[in-house]
Amino acid sequence: MDQTQMLEIALQEARRGLKEGGVPVGAALFDANGKLLGKGRNQRVQNDDPSVHGETDAFRNAGRQTSYSDKIMVTTLAPCWYCSGLIRQFNIGTVIVGESVNFQGGIEWLRENGISVIDLQSQDCIDLMAGFIRDNPALWNEDIGEASP
Amino acid sequence: MDQTQMLEIALQEARRGLKEGGVPVGAALFDANGKLLGKGRNQRVQNDDPSVHGETDAFRNAGRQTSYSDKIMVTTLAPCWYCSGLIRQFNIGTVIVGESVNFQGGIEWLRENGISVIDLQSQDCIDLMAGFIRDNPALWNEDIGEASP
Repeated sequence: MDQTQMLEIALQEARRGLKEGGVPVGAALFDANGKLLGKGRNQRVQNDDPSVHGETDAFRNAGRQTSYSDKIMVTTLAPCWYCSGLIRQFNIGTVIVGESVNFQGGIEWLRENGISVIDLQSQDCIDLMAGFIRDNPALWNEDIGEASP
Repeated sequence: MDQTQMLEIALQEARRGLKEGGVPVGAALFDANGKLLGKGRNQRVQNDDPSVHGETDAFRNAGRQTSYSDKIMVTTLAPCWYCSGLIRQFNIGTVIVGESVNFQGGIEWLRENGISVIDLQSQDCIDLMAGFIRDNPALWNEDIGEASP
């Protein structure tokens, strides 16, 4: 599975989240051979759970792993500090982000700490997130811990 | 409720986790008046869920909040990068840690980013964690993403 196909799985999760009325960020965790270990999406609205971002949902659904250094986290949007902290703590070796235009998160910090971050600059991801933020500014701000205007 | 009483609630969660066979880290989120909003504990073993550390469990159980800048996160152990990222992303104003002897996590990084971190240096917390790490090195290493020796 190539990087674009991996991203497509995360993007399907994000679109599913949007249809559910949720924050449309999706993610998936793969092993070094491109085998899917777990996928997921932001669950703030669906489960009233502020602790589940796309990355944490994929990480959870992949179950307990003994090592993450050879794993690949794919996410439709650059990871926030919470999810960047997850990636750093568990030494996830590679992160593929769909875009970092609408949100930059901690990707430079991850790079400084030795994690390989690949930004695919996907127009589909950019458009999905831009539309969501435009239509749902309060929900978006809640999800990243910013006070609403 | 004073800081020691707040820590006692988190410590009860940690001890409950230990009895369940889990990683004994507990946490609780309070509002500015010391009202308990949510408490929780590491759920790696109990729910086979690597995404739930003490802090994330307390954060989840507190439900969706519009702002965290006046909230207080109390945790028995210095927060790892994952939980430090949570605290920074959601701008939790104050963190009270039971101890930072057995694990230092991201507390200096949190301080550099304007979060007030109070270390109570609780001997009860130190002893609980030291005993757990001594008796369960593989589980502890798994929980912080370190390869076991």
